[in-house]
Amino acid sequence: MIAEIISVGTEILLGNIVNTNAAYLAEECAALGISCFNQSVVGDNEERLSEALRLALSRADIVIMGGGLGPTPDDLTKEVAAQVAGAALLMHEESKKAIAEYFKGIGKEPTDNNWKQALMPEGAVVLPNNNGTAPGCIIPLDGKCIILLPGPPEELTLMFEESVIPYLREHIPGTIYSRTVKLCGIGESRVATEIADLIEAQTNPTIATYAKTGEVHIRVSAKADSEQEAKKLAKPMVKELKERFGNYIYTTEEDVTLEKAVVDLLLANELSVGTVESCTGGLLAATLINVPGVSEVFKFGAVTYSNKSKKKLAGVKKSTLLKYGAVSPKTAEEMAKGLGLMNKADVAVSTTGIAGPDGGSTEKPVGLVYIGCYVCGKTKVKEYHFKGNRQKIRENTVKAALNLMRECILEYYSEKTFGKKGE
Amino acid sequence: MIAEIISVGTEILLGNIVNTNAAYLAEECAALGISCFNQSVVGDNEERLSEALRLALSRADIVIMGGGLGPTPDDLTKEVAAQVAGAALLMHEESKKAIAEYFKGIGKEPTDNNWKQALMPEGAVVLPNNNGTAPGCIIPLDGKCIILLPGPPEELTLMFEESVIPYLREHIPGTIYSRTVKLCGIGESRVATEIADLIEAQTNPTIATYAKTGEVHIRVSAKADSEQEAKKLAKPMVKELKERFGNYIYTTEEDVTLEKAVVDLLLANELSVGTVESCTGGLLAATLINVPGVSEVFKFGAVTYSNKSKKKLAGVKKSTLLKYGAVSPKTAEEMAKGLGLMNKADVAVSTTGIAGPDGGSTEKPVGLVYIGCYVCGKTKVKEYHFKGNRQKIRENTVKAALNLMRECILEYYSEKTFGKKGE
Repeated sequence: MIAEIISVGTEILLGNIVNTNAAYLAEECAALGISCFNQSVVGDNEERLSEALRLALSRADIVIMGGGLGPTPDDLTKEVAAQVAGAALLMHEESKKAIAEYFKGIGKEPTDNNWKQALMPEGAVVLPNNNGTAPGCIIPLDGKCIILLPGPPEELTLMFEESVIPYLREHIPGTIYSRTVKLCGIGESRVATEIADLIEAQTNPTIATYAKTGEVHIRVSAKADSEQEAKKLAKPMVKELKERFGNYIYTTEEDVTLEKAVVDLLLANELSVGTVESCTGGLLAATLINVPGVSEVFKFGAVTYSNKSKKKLAGVKKSTLLKYGAVSPKTAEEMAKGLGLMNKADVAVSTTGIAGPDGGSTEKPVGLVYIGCYVCGKTKVKEYHFKGNRQKIRENTVKAALNLMRECILEYYSEKTFGKKGE
Repeated sequence: MIAEIISVGTEILLGNIVNTNAAYLAEECAALGISCFNQSVVGDNEERLSEALRLALSRADIVIMGGGLGPTPDDLTKEVAAQVAGAALLMHEESKKAIAEYFKGIGKEPTDNNWKQALMPEGAVVLPNNNGTAPGCIIPLDGKCIILLPGPPEELTLMFEESVIPYLREHIPGTIYSRTVKLCGIGESRVATEIADLIEAQTNPTIATYAKTGEVHIRVSAKADSEQEAKKLAKPMVKELKERFGNYIYTTEEDVTLEKAVVDLLLANELSVGTVESCTGGLLAATLINVPGVSEVFKFGAVTYSNKSKKKLAGVKKSTLLKYGAVSPKTAEEMAKGLGLMNKADVAVSTTGIAGPDGGSTEKPVGLVYIGCYVCGKTKVKEYHFKGNRQKIRENTVKAALNLMRECILEYYSEKTFGKKGE
């Protein structure tokens, strides 16, 4: 089964927005076992839209079009698709009602334009929009299909999840079941080496690695007649990966991010947490705070960019700063320990490093970062060497800090359990 | 002049990475006055690459291909482009030398594969890569041209800036000069309304608006035989926009972001700054700290997610929290003022709001945010209602906080100058 993605919008052609919709749709297609060999972008222009759609239909089974379903005369995607499919546009009463209700909900009056959004190609499966006004649709055409989705990412993704995935699952011969094994603290090339034999021998399930900032994901996809059967096929591979990578794996759940895994660990063990950041400048706290429910454990975050604030807020010794400098393992250690003790936090994490572009030296080059992690009386410091620009170094530091928290908390409990050390 | 962008890479087709290169290239083309009606993405596949290139050449004057110049046999872009252009691939000695030097610099040995990157189509203009090993090139073809660029964004953008823009400027009839007028604190629709007459009457220069998160940019582009002439054409329009939008404009410089404009204002007036964040959870500090040179003025940032830390670190009164709640104008005011006074910072900014998805009520819905700004003894608080998910609400809050800082500092100095108030 082959799909092709057409993104519609002048704002993409002008570089005004980045085409995240295409990446989302491509990843979802891959997860469903649907191949995707071409993507394209066109503006709201009848001729070019029609040309792009006809070309896509000539080489793919499923053409997914995102954008151009708005209420203005500029928005032509539905009109062009209906024309290419030879289908008339008819008023879809249910969609009309949904639009009326949407406007009632936000306390505004719909304009005449809005009713245009309720016109649907004859014979199409209508997809409700639970995040906006433009419904989508699936137009069947000679054993193929055209899927029309609204452009705003929050509308497109919700509609794809709620309506398109179930539709495709039903129409794709067999079922695809995917599990993503997410790793942190190990590079993609090492992951690839460690599973070279599995990749070489793969048939069903298939496995593929994806490099993310500071993380590596391995996707296991199994194909079978039923979901249950596909799950059964995927299971031994996931188990094998768990055995090979152990604690490098922070989750095998789709909706768990690294920061969520860390917050879950804190919540499960009722550990309060504080952050004290130099080179990340608040980004670590902001990442943790993005996890709903974190307020139960997050005590306090400090951005101690100056030496003075490092002393005042985390009790770093003047002599430490003089002797070793702000970017040193000793300073990272004192920051974490000091913040933890001064604020009675069970866990405290510190970052100090050189994010560049200036401030580097031969001894302490740009990208050198120390991260300290204090857990219930014990502090661990690690040294890192990151590459890339200021922003990239920061993002990598945040990932590494989250992973160090995970590592230290797990170590603390395993030592406690096995009676080696502990409180 | 029409350009078309072809992005090459299986990782884009799989949704593994977002195609930021295409957005960058599209925006740069628009700034050069080059139209772009189609973009496409293909994998590293000879047949599909060739098909995409031929199609693009049939409808555009300039085809820009990004990606597929790597050292492995998978990387086929150059080979396919040379074949389509009927040009032989020859060893380019200068590029070979540059590759050898690059590897010497990073202390590694080149592999045999790497020399493949120094092969160049006969007759092509070679573009040096100052951020990596793969040189790019421009292949002239029947009055058109094919531009090949490496895939990694930091290599592609640098090469485009250093080599492609000068080349295109030389080959495009006339010169395009662009200025971007950047606004904050005003919505796109209001901007569009305010300049509807200018847009209606535009010929040369042209003007276009771009909506960014929390900002609106207006690009003024003038075309003339010389750069000087084009500048002269653009000038009155920029002046007109400055008169219409006044302090909503934070810069007319290309490389100045809102956070940089704020930091510049702090540096110019020797004002120290501190942040105290609740709903933004460190993102405001992280944004400020992304500006090189900020360390001279940034005193201290606090992430006071809990009521306890609001009291301890910013001196918010217990009675205030009890009477008005954490999300209230009074709390925002006390946070900013308290942090400023306790840390002897000239400027202090606070954020408190409901970022969702939970925690909203009819009285205090998700998206309600209060921002406080203290400047040398005086505190101002503003109320905001943002839409979108948790992340979007945060990003909008950061933009609004930066803009409020700008507003309060400007007000403070205008009042001082005109002798109304002040120290």
